[in-house]
Formats: sequence, C-alpha cells, structure tokens
Amino acid sequence: MKSISQYREAFQEYLDLKVQVKEPENLYEPMRYILSLGGKRLRPVLVLMSTEIFEADYKKALDAALAIEIFHNFSLVHDDIMDDAPLRRGKETVHERWDINTGILSGDAMLINAYQLFENYDGDTFKELARLFTKTAMQVCEGQQYDIDFETRDDVAIEDYLKMIEYKTAVLVGASLQMGAIVANTSTQCKEAVYEFGRLLGIAFQLQDDYLDAFGDPETFGKQPGGDIIENKKTFLYLKSLEASGKSEAQQLEHLYTINPAETSGKIEAVKTLFENSGAAALTQREIEKYTEKAFKVLDEIDISEEKKRPLRQFGEMLMNRTV
Amino acid sequence: MKSISQYREAFQEYLDLKVQVKEPENLYEPMRYILSLGGKRLRPVLVLMSTEIFEADYKKALDAALAIEIFHNFSLVHDDIMDDAPLRRGKETVHERWDINTGILSGDAMLINAYQLFENYDGDTFKELARLFTKTAMQVCEGQQYDIDFETRDDVAIEDYLKMIEYKTAVLVGASLQMGAIVANTSTQCKEAVYEFGRLLGIAFQLQDDYLDAFGDPETFGKQPGGDIIENKKTFLYLKSLEASGKSEAQQLEHLYTINPAETSGKIEAVKTLFENSGAAALTQREIEKYTEKAFKVLDEIDISEEKKRPLRQFGEMLMNRTV
Repeated sequence: MKSISQYREAFQEYLDLKVQVKEPENLYEPMRYILSLGGKRLRPVLVLMSTEIFEADYKKALDAALAIEIFHNFSLVHDDIMDDAPLRRGKETVHERWDINTGILSGDAMLINAYQLFENYDGDTFKELARLFTKTAMQVCEGQQYDIDFETRDDVAIEDYLKMIEYKTAVLVGASLQMGAIVANTSTQCKEAVYEFGRLLGIAFQLQDDYLDAFGDPETFGKQPGGDIIENKKTFLYLKSLEASGKSEAQQLEHLYTINPAETSGKIEAVKTLFENSGAAALTQREIEKYTEKAFKVLDEIDISEEKKRPLRQFGEMLMNRTV
Repeated sequence: MKSISQYREAFQEYLDLKVQVKEPENLYEPMRYILSLGGKRLRPVLVLMSTEIFEADYKKALDAALAIEIFHNFSLVHDDIMDDAPLRRGKETVHERWDINTGILSGDAMLINAYQLFENYDGDTFKELARLFTKTAMQVCEGQQYDIDFETRDDVAIEDYLKMIEYKTAVLVGASLQMGAIVANTSTQCKEAVYEFGRLLGIAFQLQDDYLDAFGDPETFGKQPGGDIIENKKTFLYLKSLEASGKSEAQQLEHLYTINPAETSGKIEAVKTLFENSGAAALTQREIEKYTEKAFKVLDEIDISEEKKRPLRQFGEMLMNRTV
C-alpha cells in the first residue's frame, strides 16, 4: 500500500487531468479555480486508501474519489456565499472573485458533475455509489440548515449540536471510506464498519476543531484562535459550558455571546476562562477522546488483517494530532 | 390513455402525497412552497404520457415525473435568485419570502432529491434515468450560463442563441419524453426519436415565447408584453432584426437597447416597429413553424401506431397554440 502523501499525489495528478475548463468558461473556470486551491484532499485519500484496504486497485476508485472532492468543493462554494466569506484557503472565494450568481451556478454544475463521475462504474456499483452519495449529500444540506438555524435559536441541546456536526461533516468522511469499500466490492459488514469508523472519527475531528478554535496554538492550528467566540458560534464548548456552569456564570457567558466588541481579545479571554472554569474545556477533551476511542474500537472489530488496518489507524492518529 | 388534464391530476395527487415537510423545516418548507405554486406541470405530464404511448402503466413513471418537476423547480428557485425576481407564478419567490441563503440551500436539496427519486427503479433503468438526467441537468446549467453571458456580449450569433434556448429549455422537454420511454423499456430508436420530438418542440416553444413576449395578446399570453424589450434581452427577434436590417435601422435598434426609460411604452413600440419592418417578426414566425414541422415529421416516423401518436400530436398542437 501507498503512503498518504502518495495517494494524495496520485489523486492530484488525476484531478489535474480530469478537471479541465471547457465552454461555457464562466461555468467551468470557477470549478477549476476552487479545485486548484489545494487543501488536504483528506476525503479522496480515504476513498483510495479504503479501496486498497479491501483488496482492490486504488486506480479503480479515482472517479469516486474525484466525485467526493468535487462535492466537498461544491459545498464550500455555496457555504462561502451563505457565510459571506471573503477568503478560502487564503485566496478569494468564488463569489468574491466572480459574483454570487457565478458561485450559485458553478456550484450547481459541480454537484451534477459529481454524479457524472459515477457513470464510469457498472450497473450495481453505480447504483450503490449514487445511492450512498445522494443520502450523504442530503444529510450535508440538512446539517448546513441546522447550523444556520442554530444561529438564531437559544434552545440548542448538545445532542442537536452533535447531530448537526455529524451531518455537516462526519457522514462525508464515513461515505468516503464506504465508497472505497463499494468499489472494492467487499462484504456488507465491512462496508458498514468502515463507514462507522469514518463517521465517529469525523465527529471527533469536528469537536477537536471546535476545541482548537478556542485553545489551539496559532502556530500549529494554522489560523488565529477565537473565531468562533467572536462570531458567537454555539459550539460544543459553549453548550457544554452553559450546561456545566452555575446560574451566574451561565448568564455571564450568555451575555458575552450578545456583544460584538471591536477589540475582541478581552471577550475571547473572558469566554475562554468561563469555558475552563466550568469544566467544559476538559469535558470537551474527554468527548473527543470518547469518539476517537469508539472509532478505533470499530476499526479493531473489522474482519481484515492487522496490516490492512494500520493505514486507517495511522490516518486517524494523524488526523487527531493534526499533523495531516 | 388518459387526457392531459387527467395525467395532470394524477401527477398532482402523487406530488401532494410525496412532497411533505420534514425536519429541518427551513430546508423542506421552501421546497413544498415552490411546488405548491402550481404551474402547468407540462414536463411531468409528458413523462407519464410517453410511458403509456410506449405501452407501460403511467403509474410506473410517477417517480421519474416527480424528479423532473422537482428539478425544474430547483432551476426556477436558483434562476430567480440570479435574476433578482420578486415574483413567480404571481407569488413571492423563495428568496423573497425567506432569503437568498434559503433559496440556495433548499434548491441544492431539491436537486439531490430529484436523484433520490430514481432509486425507486431497478439497476439498469436507474442508471439510464440518472445518466439522462445528469446530461440534461448539466446542459440546463450551461444554457443558463450562456444566457447570463449573452447579457454582456454584443457578438451573439443566432446559432449561439438557438443553442442557448435548446440547452436552457428544450433538452428538458426531450428528456421528459425519453424518461417515459426508458421506464416503458422501449427500443433505442423510439427513445431517441421521442427525445428529438421534444427537443424540436421545445425550441419552437421557446421561440414562440420570445415572439409572444413582443407581439402576444396580453389577454391570452397571460403577462404584459414587452418585458424582454424593457430588459434589453437579446432574443431571436432582436438578433434576427439586426441581421435583416440596413445599417441605419440596426444602429437605431442597438441604441434603443442601451436606454432604460422610466416610461417604457414608447421604446416598446419603436422596437416592435423595427422588428416588423426588418421582416424579423415574420422570419421568427417562419422559424417557429420550421421547428414545429420538423418535430411533427420526427413524430410521423416513430414506429408506433397512429393512435398512440395522437396524444403527442395534440399536446404539440395545444402547446403551439398556447391553449395549454
């Protein structure tokens, strides 16, 4: 089996070959642009890796991997419009570089293009891939809707939040791994288990993202911490903190989440202190560990050799240590 | 076989049954809303009709018909955002009633939902339907992009325009008819011929729409004429008029297409006079006839009984006389 960076390279080569600008250029150029901004290509790497773990040539899975990456980028283009985000991976977002209409329409074309790539698989595999993709894509939309709804709701329960991040982020990680298993035509049991591993790891990853957004080292986390706090985002840390705090601290936190000061550092420090003193910071870390452990337990039980499991284990460990 | 209005009723009943609001409501309610605004349901009626023409029970085609109608409404929701349109079928557009983000995201969910409906067909039929749908959906996006591009281009050739309306409108009419033929599992020849009939009729219909927008009777056309002229839309009439006019008249027309007077009736009359005097009005009518005749000629040659062809012939005649 190849290393993660080898899979990434093979995928990148395929992407460069397949994603070409054609007429009408204003539809296809934004697609090429967003896909050229790079990123870690985690999802397509998982598709390829999973295919080889279940004993098929990763080359058979390149179209499915590309479909997943194009879908992921479609969701970034539309989400960036909804979030009014000026930058993506340090470059202008599509709707900034062109305009909102271009972002909407080229996003639509990307979603359709993802389906097109499954046509390279024969009858049963095609249907299985398309069905999984449709289910997952719909959940991603639902997750995005929950995320939007939560902004204006003040009764978000922790389980609502977990469902939101599961739909918005984790199911696509599970689906990536399951697509490899489908292409490799492995057993139903293996297909389900590898999906579950990805889903659990995806939730752990997103919780960690929340945690690092407040407590991460700007050097290794890659962005300035405190963004979620500035935006009053009801993350796991916030919801857990409300739950674990006494009445007075909870009111303080809620108050801090109604203000938008120009100078943000005071607010960030005050909120982080409440996250820590309530025990929410430690509880979030425990939750991350819980999901990570669950994921590895599912992996343990998959009926393949230890050698085959190693790449997934390494991937999970790297992901959770954020060296990927 | 049933009458058009009977197919419409059967379809409407199925739509009411299947399109239900579920959680998260803000994602699914706009979908139910836009689908409840009515419309002529031309495309799903064509799916059902085509299924029976090729000797299968129309009930088998209800999911494909619903997929087509949901896709059509997805394109309306996103197009209305792009056109900044306040009204659709006399009611608020989705992005007016909610907001742009809701329009984008519920539109995305509708596109995905259309694919979901094909899952009710078995392996080969599923793949054939999904493949046709993907090809068509991509062309609809390309057509929309050409339409946007034409707004700022002053070198649009008549053949470019014809390709634009073919992609934006006509291919979905062809695909609707072909879907019925696929569900009925008829011959490749019949599948292709019925698609071609729909494609040609769709182009004729769109050209007629352009014509009626300038010269239609407001009583029967259903909207105030002159909208395209007010918006300086480069329709077939406009492009044909430029082509057929002398230099001075062409310049006059081009000038009229640079002004946006508050009081529009003078401009509308002046442009219509140029459309008529250049011969473009008559040439457009001839073009409509040409495409309609071509469509009926394709229908003549389809290898089914005259009795089976009658509903399609009637549908075509009604469509072109705008009594549907």
